[in-house]
Amino acid sequence: MSRVTALMAAGYEETELISVVDILKRGNIEVRMVSVTGERAVTGNHGISVLTDRLFGEEDLSESDVLFLPGGVPGVPNLAAHEGVIAALKAHHAAGKRIAAICAAPSIPGKLGMFAGRKFTCHAGWEKEIDGVDGACFVPDEIVTDELFSTSRGVGTAVDFGLELVRLLRDRETADRIRTEIHHPATI
Amino acid sequence: MSRVTALMAAGYEETELISVVDILKRGNIEVRMVSVTGERAVTGNHGISVLTDRLFGEEDLSESDVLFLPGGVPGVPNLAAHEGVIAALKAHHAAGKRIAAICAAPSIPGKLGMFAGRKFTCHAGWEKEIDGVDGACFVPDEIVTDELFSTSRGVGTAVDFGLELVRLLRDRETADRIRTEIHHPATI
Repeated sequence: MSRVTALMAAGYEETELISVVDILKRGNIEVRMVSVTGERAVTGNHGISVLTDRLFGEEDLSESDVLFLPGGVPGVPNLAAHEGVIAALKAHHAAGKRIAAICAAPSIPGKLGMFAGRKFTCHAGWEKEIDGVDGACFVPDEIVTDELFSTSRGVGTAVDFGLELVRLLRDRETADRIRTEIHHPATI
Repeated sequence: MSRVTALMAAGYEETELISVVDILKRGNIEVRMVSVTGERAVTGNHGISVLTDRLFGEEDLSESDVLFLPGGVPGVPNLAAHEGVIAALKAHHAAGKRIAAICAAPSIPGKLGMFAGRKFTCHAGWEKEIDGVDGACFVPDEIVTDELFSTSRGVGTAVDFGLELVRLLRDRETADRIRTEIHHPATI
C-alpha cells in the first residue's frame, strides 16, 4: 500500500487538503496528516482546525511514497520557512520519490530548483520566479504530472488532483470508480 | 450578513462539509460548525477530525438563515436520529428559512415530508421512499434549488454547491468571482 504524507502548517487551504486526503483514502491509500506547528490541531486559512495524525518529527518521512503540500497563505510561506520541511523535500526528491503540490505550494519545490526541465502548474501568479528558470515550464492546465512531480491549481481542481494521485498510486480504474461514486463531472 | 449553521454528527463526509464551509467563508458569509455529538472534535467518515465552533445547545439555531446538512454515512443516520436536530429542522422550515443538504442528507428533510411538491436531488439511491411521495420530484442534476430547499449530490459537486449558496445568500457576481479565484471549471 502506498503512503502519502500531507504536511500542514498554520494557514493551509482547507478544501485543498481535505479533498485530496479524502479521495486518497477512498482509494485505500494510506494517508498521514503531519503538523509542522508543534500542535496536534492545525488551523487553516479560513479558520477551520483539523486534528493531525502526527507531529513533525514523530513520523518517519522516508517511509512515505508521496509528500503532499496543500496550498493556502500563510500555509505555504510557513511550510517554506520550516527547515525540517525543506530538508525532507530535498531528501524525498533525492530518493526519486513523488512530490504533489497544489495552488501556491508548487512554489516550494519550484524555488528549490526541482522543476528544472519540467512542466508544472500552480495558482495564477505563483509561477513567477520559477517559470523559465532552468527550463521549468509553467502550463496553465488544471493538473500537470511530469515525471515525479504532480501539481495543480487550487480549490476548484482539488478533487481532480486527488483522483490523479489515485490514478498514479493505484490505477485508472480505481480513480474512475471513485469519480463515479462521488458524482464528479468528468471535466478534467 | 447571512449565517449558515453546519450540523455535524460523527461520520459526516469531510469534503462535503469543508468545501461548502470554505466557499461560504470566501463569500463573507458567517458560518458556524455545530457538533451534535457532545464533543468539540467530530470525526468524519474517513477518519478526519474537525474542531467545531459550538456544541448543539450552545448555539441559538433560530438565528441561522440556513441549516446545512453534510452527507456521509453514518453521519446522516446519526443526524436523523438526533431529536434536537429534527426539532430544529422543523422549526427552521416552519419559519420559512432555507435548508441546504448534500449527498445522503437530503433524505432527512425528504423523509420529514418537506419536499412535498418540490424538486430535489441527492446521492444516487437516497431518493428512495421520497421521490414521488406527495409530489416530491427527484431530479438527477448536480444542484437543485426549489424555493427554500437547496440540494446536491456528493463530494464531486460540493464546491459548486457552496457557490450556489453564495449566489443565493449574496449574489451571482460574488459566486463568479470566487469560482474564478479558485480555478474552478465552469461546468455546472
